[in-house]
Amino acid sequence: MRESFFADLLAQIADRGRALFPGSRRVPLLGHQPDIRDLCNALLSRRGEASGVALADQILNIWSQSDSERKKRFLLDLVADFGPSLPQFEAAIATWKEQRSEATLRAVHAAAEPRRQELIRRLNLAPGGTRRLVSMREEIFAHRKEHPELDILDADFVHLFSSWFNRGFLVLRRIDWSTSANILEKIIRYEAVHAIDDWTELRRRIEPEDRRLFAFFHPQMTDEPLIFVEVALTRDIPDSIAPLLAPDRQAISTAEADTAVFYSISNCQEGLRGVSFGNFLIKQVVEDLRRELPNLRTFVTLSPVPGFAKWLDRQLGTAPAWLTPADIEALDILRRGGGITNDQERGHLAVTLDGAAAQYFLMEKNNHQKPIDPVARFHLGNGARLERLNPFGDISANGIRQSYGLMVNYLYDLKSIEENHEAFAEAGEVAASSTVRNKLRPTTAERKDSKKIVA
Amino acid sequence: MRESFFADLLAQIADRGRALFPGSRRVPLLGHQPDIRDLCNALLSRRGEASGVALADQILNIWSQSDSERKKRFLLDLVADFGPSLPQFEAAIATWKEQRSEATLRAVHAAAEPRRQELIRRLNLAPGGTRRLVSMREEIFAHRKEHPELDILDADFVHLFSSWFNRGFLVLRRIDWSTSANILEKIIRYEAVHAIDDWTELRRRIEPEDRRLFAFFHPQMTDEPLIFVEVALTRDIPDSIAPLLAPDRQAISTAEADTAVFYSISNCQEGLRGVSFGNFLIKQVVEDLRRELPNLRTFVTLSPVPGFAKWLDRQLGTAPAWLTPADIEALDILRRGGGITNDQERGHLAVTLDGAAAQYFLMEKNNHQKPIDPVARFHLGNGARLERLNPFGDISANGIRQSYGLMVNYLYDLKSIEENHEAFAEAGEVAASSTVRNKLRPTTAERKDSKKIVA
Amino acid sequence: MRESFFADLLAQIADRGRALFPGSRRVPLLGHQPDIRDLCNALLSRRGEASGVALADQILNIWSQSDSERKKRFLLDLVADFGPSLPQFEAAIATWKEQRSEATLRAVHAAAEPRRQELIRRLNLAPGGTRRLVSMREEIFAHRKEHPELDILDADFVHLFSSWFNRGFLVLRRIDWSTSANILEKIIRYEAVHAIDDWTELRRRIEPEDRRLFAFFHPQMTDEPLIFVEVALTRDIPDSIAPLLAPDRQAISTAEADTAVFYSISNCQEGLRGVSFGNFLIKQVVEDLRRELPNLRTFVTLSPVPGFAKWLDRQLGTAPAWLTPADIEALDILRRGGGITNDQERGHLAVTLDGAAAQYFLMEKNNHQKPIDPVARFHLGNGARLERLNPFGDISANGIRQSYGLMVNYLYDLKSIEENHEAFAEAGEVAASSTVRNKLRPTTAERKDSKKIVA
Amino acid sequence: MRESFFADLLAQIADRGRALFPGSRRVPLLGHQPDIRDLCNALLSRRGEASGVALADQILNIWSQSDSERKKRFLLDLVADFGPSLPQFEAAIATWKEQRSEATLRAVHAAAEPRRQELIRRLNLAPGGTRRLVSMREEIFAHRKEHPELDILDADFVHLFSSWFNRGFLVLRRIDWSTSANILEKIIRYEAVHAIDDWTELRRRIEPEDRRLFAFFHPQMTDEPLIFVEVALTRDIPDSIAPLLAPDRQAISTAEADTAVFYSISNCQEGLRGVSFGNFLIKQVVEDLRRELPNLRTFVTLSPVPGFAKWLDRQLGTAPAWLTPADIEALDILRRGGGITNDQERGHLAVTLDGAAAQYFLMEKNNHQKPIDPVARFHLGNGARLERLNPFGDISANGIRQSYGLMVNYLYDLKSIEENHEAFAEAGEVAASSTVRNKLRPTTAERKDSKKIVA
Repeated sequence: MRESFFADLLAQIADRGRALFPGSRRVPLLGHQPDIRDLCNALLSRRGEASGVALADQILNIWSQSDSERKKRFLLDLVADFGPSLPQFEAAIATWKEQRSEATLRAVHAAAEPRRQELIRRLNLAPGGTRRLVSMREEIFAHRKEHPELDILDADFVHLFSSWFNRGFLVLRRIDWSTSANILEKIIRYEAVHAIDDWTELRRRIEPEDRRLFAFFHPQMTDEPLIFVEVALTRDIPDSIAPLLAPDRQAISTAEADTAVFYSISNCQEGLRGVSFGNFLIKQVVEDLRRELPNLRTFVTLSPVPGFAKWLDRQLGTAPAWLTPADIEALDILRRGGGITNDQERGHLAVTLDGAAAQYFLMEKNNHQKPIDPVARFHLGNGARLERLNPFGDISANGIRQSYGLMVNYLYDLKSIEENHEAFAEAGEVAASSTVRNKLRPTTAERKDSKKIVA
Repeated sequence: MRESFFADLLAQIADRGRALFPGSRRVPLLGHQPDIRDLCNALLSRRGEASGVALADQILNIWSQSDSERKKRFLLDLVADFGPSLPQFEAAIATWKEQRSEATLRAVHAAAEPRRQELIRRLNLAPGGTRRLVSMREEIFAHRKEHPELDILDADFVHLFSSWFNRGFLVLRRIDWSTSANILEKIIRYEAVHAIDDWTELRRRIEPEDRRLFAFFHPQMTDEPLIFVEVALTRDIPDSIAPLLAPDRQAISTAEADTAVFYSISNCQEGLRGVSFGNFLIKQVVEDLRRELPNLRTFVTLSPVPGFAKWLDRQLGTAPAWLTPADIEALDILRRGGGITNDQERGHLAVTLDGAAAQYFLMEKNNHQKPIDPVARFHLGNGARLERLNPFGDISANGIRQSYGLMVNYLYDLKSIEENHEAFAEAGEVAASSTVRNKLRPTTAERKDSKKIVA
Repeated sequence: MRESFFADLLAQIADRGRALFPGSRRVPLLGHQPDIRDLCNALLSRRGEASGVALADQILNIWSQSDSERKKRFLLDLVADFGPSLPQFEAAIATWKEQRSEATLRAVHAAAEPRRQELIRRLNLAPGGTRRLVSMREEIFAHRKEHPELDILDADFVHLFSSWFNRGFLVLRRIDWSTSANILEKIIRYEAVHAIDDWTELRRRIEPEDRRLFAFFHPQMTDEPLIFVEVALTRDIPDSIAPLLAPDRQAISTAEADTAVFYSISNCQEGLRGVSFGNFLIKQVVEDLRRELPNLRTFVTLSPVPGFAKWLDRQLGTAPAWLTPADIEALDILRRGGGITNDQERGHLAVTLDGAAAQYFLMEKNNHQKPIDPVARFHLGNGARLERLNPFGDISANGIRQSYGLMVNYLYDLKSIEENHEAFAEAGEVAASSTVRNKLRPTTAERKDSKKIVA
Repeated sequence: MRESFFADLLAQIADRGRALFPGSRRVPLLGHQPDIRDLCNALLSRRGEASGVALADQILNIWSQSDSERKKRFLLDLVADFGPSLPQFEAAIATWKEQRSEATLRAVHAAAEPRRQELIRRLNLAPGGTRRLVSMREEIFAHRKEHPELDILDADFVHLFSSWFNRGFLVLRRIDWSTSANILEKIIRYEAVHAIDDWTELRRRIEPEDRRLFAFFHPQMTDEPLIFVEVALTRDIPDSIAPLLAPDRQAISTAEADTAVFYSISNCQEGLRGVSFGNFLIKQVVEDLRRELPNLRTFVTLSPVPGFAKWLDRQLGTAPAWLTPADIEALDILRRGGGITNDQERGHLAVTLDGAAAQYFLMEKNNHQKPIDPVARFHLGNGARLERLNPFGDISANGIRQSYGLMVNYLYDLKSIEENHEAFAEAGEVAASSTVRNKLRPTTAERKDSKKIVA
């Protein structure tokens, strides 16, 4: 009951939106159009208190009808003209210096808040405001390189979006073949890991009994997924992606499945970059699936290793100690575009990739002492464990190019998530199964052990 | 479609809530219970990143099981131990002094933010977090007199709630006899102007064709109205409340109505005090009713005058120039508890109340140069106009006690709302019809005019 | 998704209904109003094919505005003028006599169908038609005694309603405190076993964790329950009603409950009398509860025994062999309006009531060789077993008056339902626990045994 | 509220369905499977009263797992073994002969009802029963030619379906881009007039502001449209289909449209053949569109003329009086597969097609004295008027082959629908605009007039 109650609410919003937009959007950009900055000042003034909704709508309409050049100018104006009031800020600091108290400190905090933030809050009054503000932030990205001063504006958006898109306000929803087409269409568009070619392929990912797709939504953007994850229910942990996506595969019944495989995670809203919910998404899905299907025992990803091939190519140039002539020979076949033709070659290549991957994940670090692989940083940062290396996980042309075919599994084991997360966050320690650790070549392993002792 | 989609989402939240609460809420308060402050620190730490939802839930459960004394101590701890880091703050100011830039200013802003705010944001991760945080703030009110330092914590709540309950996130919904009982029950409980005695009385307010009730809701609190307004559709502006509420009155058809009367507005959530949406509510309802019923031409309140009797009693003590012996005589009948028995008395009393009311609304000001009547401040602040004085608007015992029976109409005229609002906000000018202005007694009127000239 | 889809559909129906009714219902009953019989003939004619919806609506509007006398006349007209065409029927029989075939038999069947049935089908085209036809049938009951010829019309309604209200079209729904008020209001009104005095009492029956209420609905009458059952979740089988309904009782958690008690079943639609769904309702609820709460092991009623006191009073007059002087003495206290004051009396009374009840349920039969108690016939006919006699099950004034305080439990044991049902339907055999059987007084038991042997 | 309430109901049905089907459907067809006829007899017996839902489900599961041969045998068994009881029927007739009364007539009617009908009613108890029974009827069509005795069974289905799918139980719903994929997929599949090639084409038909698609649904088959109509909102009546379907056309705003064009109507459920709702669909859509868009003034179809080319080819063989050498020449170009290359040819062809079409629609009749064109019979039977002939309405290869490019408009004018319908149904009179009438060649027109005089 409660739900449908809200459904009604949203329907009304939607209706209102429809009623307001068609007309207002078509307002031609005539000569006498008011200046958008004047409107923003009005919105921040008393007039905004009286006519906030209409003013905010007008501003966002002008924005959306503007070309990229005008948009850029407006964004720069926001930086230049809608910051904090410096005199007030200096005065607040002076007062604080005189009399240190919670109250005077709070006054500094208040004076330091850019007027932009209140402006953005008031723009959100407009129908569809949240969505339109998210797309406004996307425009920042287009000009950021040229105008680094936009970073300061971006930070304001991030601050507000972090509050508005607090996980407490998000709703997890299963997407399936009974979901509305306007949402499914976006799943096709936003899928970023294993492209969905058409509606038939989409259907294969969401309709069979052993496939799931979950997405986070925000109440103000009910037909825009924020992030989604695709899940395959399997027996055992899969070691390659092709069988999972094969058009002619046989679905298994949920009763037979003991493993849930997260094989694709995609962020949908460029304008929410840096506002992370992937962490919450996976944990929530694990929890929900456990409740629904108690016989699931393993929660694991089948993940790409995006930078692996490039990194390995660079290693071949520097010839480090752990890289053997046999490795180089094995890789050469792939690098020349050839295929593996016999079991022996296949065996050699597996050894090579396993060794290189162990090196890549366990030993190579970026400036923050974290693994250089972004997907690894995401899952390890969530508290997952690097469980298995799959040398022939993705032998499509793209897979070979990206990672010489390597894919990996990260294991989400609820019992050790918190500990793993903490060790990773504080000491950069990579949680990995002994199987993976054992693939480290001796020289490295020694170095590693000694390092561990030091740490 | 979209709606029901969200309905599903909310259903899931609800289900999850149900699944989590029963168990967790029953956790007995044994000796080994973790300290709530420790948990809060954990929630702000790395552990909170990994296990935020569970931690937040645990903290809020402990909170809700605590007695008032323990709650107070926790609130005081939040003030004392979860403010900004002073060294960091001082360092940020020092840096700013050295190098004034957007970046260093922003650093001051960041350093000045109390850790409480991030804590409250993370507590919101818990199922039902928003609702539970709103009720946490109610506890502040209970201890604020004794501990004024809680004001600083209250300001943090207001800051966050203002962002979370941004009008852009609220949804207006009509409440009627097909609304769910758990919401209707709250309408009965929260009605603050003309009490609803039972379900029969409630039904009379929401079911007839010429009655409406609208409320604002937040997506995270779908069965808790935030504020609601009761509307009567009438022919002409009513001058007393009794006929509107009469159990045996005849409903008129919507086609016959030309006037919408807002006769009761009630805030529901004590914990959202100071986060105002009444302004938006009335304007939205006006807009929606105009769309639905194009023959409505007048939007007006029938409002109580809460402090009028007390104020007038004080005037009787000081005997100001505008108060005549005839006035005093007329009031005496009411003050002695008697009733008006003939048309002459009634005429006298009307003259007296009209004159006093004109004085009360137009001349008497508080420290901010605004009318002393809170209801007047609300509607005039919204840009409404004081339209008519109704000396016999509420002749119930309560009405006589509160305002000698006086009620007034405030008119919402979309064309002048913005102007009225601005004049009121800036100069304290009270928009009033000429009928009302003409009730001012000469002496006063002169004073008033002279004042206007000065202004 | 699918659901909300349908929600939309129903919303549209509802809207349309609202749009059509207000106006059409208000059509004044002027002199020139068309004759309702003419309209019915038009509806059955070509005109009905073109303008069926409007015609049907008009007829039902006139009907609902008519007084009881006009309604009666219309019902009688339906009997007299809208039967089958006799010449056609005779002709069809003649053809059949000449040539016996499936086709000629079918022609007889078709010719024998009263035109009323097609008329009723077409009346159902009107918005809200189903509901209005159900209420039309209620009017038949008001005149049936006086006009037994209405039976034939009643049979037509039953024939169509049995098809339309086929269990395959009904939907079971849990009613709780989040259900809409317009449905809850009807639960209060329709409760026929243990009256619900007000909304507070209603809430006690549906909100606690250990209380359930389920109802059947028809898609065309979504705010009208057809039948509902109230369930208490308990530990052990209860032997009296008062503790179940006590205002101050403590709810238990669903995890603690091992028994589901059906303590009230009420039919809601007088106009659907004879179209039975109680059978399906209980079985569906048993099935659903088992799925939701696997620790429930016992499904049982706590049922009144409506005719017991009257029957027993008659027995006292005839003094049958099984009734002892001690029995008569024990009952006398109650019959004189006194109360049981000590354990001895209580013990005597229990023996008396147990013995009489065993006689009543096991030995006394109506003309169809079924028990004389209607509630017993319903549950035994469903395949339940008479499990226990509770001499002090309802010691309220009403309980004493109706059944000298006796209540009984019928057990729904899925394993034996089919067998019990069959034995009861074919041989009138009453499934009863050995405990109940053992209460039979010797003389009777002998007779009973001998009878069994014969059977 | 009411709606969502029902949404819940349907969700439960759906869930239950899901819970029951997977298991039951997988039951392997082992040797010991019970005979389906025995189960049907059980379902009609006392056992069916006790365990109807489970039995019905079992029977329908066995059915759906059977091959076509077994299905055929079962259908024939239904005819042979589940008819009325002949002795009872003869007895009822005998009684009627002795004593003619409403009661004895009713007894004949009851005795004449085949047991099949009650069987089908009870099969409907199964989850998803209605849908499965609809598909059972489809199987009849596959064997009807070979076994004409199945007609009698088909008539039973039609009788029950006509009652169950009474328009009063159907719900009209707009289908758009927010509709769920599983329904949209069926729109693609069922479109029978202008094929929808893919999801992109589908989107063009339902998303633009000036396109609508409406479908009827039954509450028991919420994801199966029964029939749907596609509507284009236009300025003026269109004379050819290509511009309506052009991928690059510009949508107009609803405010600009004054005409609603029904350009495609498709029945979806083969198993509901003969249960007509197209009539209701169009009238309901007209009514709803009028309410939503008051500036719509014309409601018209753009319809194919399926048998026209074949008929005209036959005419060429017989060379009737109205066919001129010029006609034959004009057609010859098209018949040889050539295209029209200049305005003169185009003009000649238009004259030829207009003349032939007038002949085809106004003069040619089938055995029932109705036009030979099925689409014409449908719309004229609904009371529409043949408004305009469009000689170049569909110049696609298919259009030329089917009707030499001819399309026509039927006008739905609410004021004359009833009259047109009646004249058509009773006298076979074709309502046609004077423009169309004027295209009749003289000879024919004379004949026609004389005929009219006779009639």
